[in-house]
Amino acid sequence: MAIDRNADSAAAERMRRAAIDAFAESGYGGTSTRQIAKRLNMSATAMYPHYRSKEELLYAIALEGHRSLLAALEAADDPETTFTERLRAVVSAFAAWHAENHKQARVVQYELHGLTPAHYRTIAPLRRDTTEFIADIVAAGVAAGEFEVDNLDEVVMAISSLCVDVCRWFPSRKHRDARKLGEVYAGVAERLVR
Amino acid sequence: MAIDRNADSAAAERMRRAAIDAFAESGYGGTSTRQIAKRLNMSATAMYPHYRSKEELLYAIALEGHRSLLAALEAADDPETTFTERLRAVVSAFAAWHAENHKQARVVQYELHGLTPAHYRTIAPLRRDTTEFIADIVAAGVAAGEFEVDNLDEVVMAISSLCVDVCRWFPSRKHRDARKLGEVYAGVAERLVR
Repeated sequence: MAIDRNADSAAAERMRRAAIDAFAESGYGGTSTRQIAKRLNMSATAMYPHYRSKEELLYAIALEGHRSLLAALEAADDPETTFTERLRAVVSAFAAWHAENHKQARVVQYELHGLTPAHYRTIAPLRRDTTEFIADIVAAGVAAGEFEVDNLDEVVMAISSLCVDVCRWFPSRKHRDARKLGEVYAGVAERLVR
Repeated sequence: MAIDRNADSAAAERMRRAAIDAFAESGYGGTSTRQIAKRLNMSATAMYPHYRSKEELLYAIALEGHRSLLAALEAADDPETTFTERLRAVVSAFAAWHAENHKQARVVQYELHGLTPAHYRTIAPLRRDTTEFIADIVAAGVAAGEFEVDNLDEVVMAISSLCVDVCRWFPSRKHRDARKLGEVYAGVAERLVR
């Protein structure tokens, strides 16, 4: 009975969702694989062919999350428009992703210390790619004379940090609409480069 | 044997420090009072006169943390200078506090859902006071014609969010100096209001 452990099967997806819910409630450290399995009315043994440990689940969630975020940025970017429009669209998608997926994003952003060093090394380039996606647009906008920044790294850090922090507090009393929030953050990013 | 449970005794402070370390390692959900006591080579029973539960420890850490942050902002503010200088000084202190106290700040910012509703209601006004401290300076700067913002709430949210997120990633390879980081954030905040 060969099971492709990498296959993004519906069962594996359900397990990751259950793990995200469990981590959101009790934290990564406060959750056992048994508790995750219980949420799906299955035994920990039945989960084993898909995910052999809690850390494997964390890694799968982090990998899927980082890929999904990067894909959202790529989908939002239209290289045919102005750098201002590109930055607005990409920042809007960045913030909206963290709003829409705030539970998963918290796991992705706050629990990475739970990864093995080898797994972290697989995730790190995806994090760099995300930052560089923003940095490339800002740098190109500066080169074209459309943007003006004192320090590229600092501006990009501020934009990323702002968007990531959305997952900590979203939704709030004032902000419950991920798309509208994206617009707000697009405006903030624009202020930082003009 | 009357013990003032509110007294900020050295023993209680040591317990809060141990709890912060334990929460940082295993998360609030993954930590027991017994594990916290063990870090201090004491029994959970010996901790009881100071903190009767893990939630009481969390509350004490959150209360002390929010008060300490607010005090740092107040100490940094000099109402005799320009609004630009005031905003720079306060934002710098806000970011530096989250850098210097990043372990405690993570507990303060990420684990509040662990508080009882009554305890949360005690913390909430302190959080509002912190936000309003920034908002008052920005609003006064706008009224004086020194700042220009499209939407006060959004700018204040962005500044707070930026400073809070420091505790997630500090220190990084590029940023290890809390004071220098404060300067960077002062510059970012200035960009947002001009």
